Amino acid sequence: MTAADPGRGTTPDGGGEAAGDELTEDGFLGGRLRILQPKKGYRAGIDAVFLAAAVPCEAGDRVLEAGLGTGVPALCLLARAKGVHVTGVEISPYHAGLARDNAARNGFADALDIVEGDMREITRARHRDRLMPGSFRHVFANPPYFELGRVQSSPRDHKRTAHAMAAGDLESWIRAMTAMAAPRGTVTLIHRADSLGAILAGFARRAGDVRVLPLFPRDGEPASRVIVQAVKGSRAGTTLLQGLVLHGPDNGFTPAAEAVLRHGAALDVA
Amino acid sequence: MTAADPGRGTTPDGGGEAAGDELTEDGFLGGRLRILQPKKGYRAGIDAVFLAAAVPCEAGDRVLEAGLGTGVPALCLLARAKGVHVTGVEISPYHAGLARDNAARNGFADALDIVEGDMREITRARHRDRLMPGSFRHVFANPPYFELGRVQSSPRDHKRTAHAMAAGDLESWIRAMTAMAAPRGTVTLIHRADSLGAILAGFARRAGDVRVLPLFPRDGEPASRVIVQAVKGSRAGTTLLQGLVLHGPDNGFTPAAEAVLRHGAALDVA
Repeated sequence: MTAADPGRGTTPDGGGEAAGDELTEDGFLGGRLRILQPKKGYRAGIDAVFLAAAVPCEAGDRVLEAGLGTGVPALCLLARAKGVHVTGVEISPYHAGLARDNAARNGFADALDIVEGDMREITRARHRDRLMPGSFRHVFANPPYFELGRVQSSPRDHKRTAHAMAAGDLESWIRAMTAMAAPRGTVTLIHRADSLGAILAGFARRAGDVRVLPLFPRDGEPASRVIVQAVKGSRAGTTLLQGLVLHGPDNGFTPAAEAVLRHGAALDVA
Repeated sequence: MTAADPGRGTTPDGGGEAAGDELTEDGFLGGRLRILQPKKGYRAGIDAVFLAAAVPCEAGDRVLEAGLGTGVPALCLLARAKGVHVTGVEISPYHAGLARDNAARNGFADALDIVEGDMREITRARHRDRLMPGSFRHVFANPPYFELGRVQSSPRDHKRTAHAMAAGDLESWIRAMTAMAAPRGTVTLIHRADSLGAILAGFARRAGDVRVLPLFPRDGEPASRVIVQAVKGSRAGTTLLQGLVLHGPDNGFTPAAEAVLRHGAALDVA
């Protein structure tokens, strides 16, 4: 398969909406959101919540999420930022359907517009009415983490398409995300910390004022994730922030992590 | 002028060893080193000490410093790591002369070999007997910080040559440094934190196991410097470390910074 094979996001028998798949209902933001997601395969976790917390939205902003999945980051953002409208692009019809269900279950059906398609091809003419390049105040994504060839094959992993990407694909995502952002709009992503070089290379000559916020699992450990935010059209340089430690010595979340994860606080990436 | 103009490192009247220049004598490592350096222009500071602390030397190692200046990092390294031999490359004859004096004043004349030349051209045939590519266990540098065109012109700034570099020159330094390192040897540099993207791009496809250690002026402030260390021939990914806060609320150095700056402790970049 290739990462661009859109058929692999659906069930292995091609049967559509995966009626036989087990779902779980999970709480996010201290239970303010109830999210249905597949029991197996890719599942949204704390990365999704931190990503949403880092997008600096204001009422009236039109925002784009690239790679919507089941909708967790978009819905976290909508729960925090009133009066915002999110468009989400999702390659897997199965996940797009779950995201629609999740939006409705949480009262955000009108605030979330879902487009089925491949983010990396988003600047092409299809869907131009809903996805105009240069029109979004903020663009954000949690791009696939695993490189093609390192992914365990699992026929029940619906997000395998999204999570099996060639190394160069991260640049494709950043290119497409930046193209969709308005002038001086922000582009935000969360990714594995070891992809930092590829992320900064992706933003080079496309955006500036790049800020890197590392997330450390524990005090003294290397970063597991980075949140990277850039401003389209800025020529300012890169800023490496001190970042956030997620877990304390007791393995519980630190107060700073708790504020984001349970209480829906915004994360200042500046 | 261009950054590669080797004449601009000497005095403006071309008169050689700059007899009319004022020098200061500064203590490093809690006074263990006494260093002569020009009163005006580029002066070695704490960056030089942190750089030296990050090079993981063992007795018997042959080590290369690119851009020796007045010799502070090399001499800090020699003060910490017994039985190590350092070769230093310096473009400015004036600074190379001061480095020779400083080595002698601190008892390291035999441990420091100084070659006058441009680091970016080091892999060419000249000096091949003392500068064989692929022969150094560790290579380190504090490359020039300022981009060409942003530097204030000052005829008395001897290190202007070294500190007036085009943006792409950082890659030239990393390419040359990596070429000089032995297989599995380390390449270490300290630089402005906003150059992190250029540094990671410079190491891409040349070295791996890249570790980034940020230095934060104060708790909660963005990093001012990064120490970046890579292993030649490694295919391991990038690691973003939690880094070091330099100053406490009282503006004094933190204990972790003090250990390196005053007591000559090594800095673990792993």
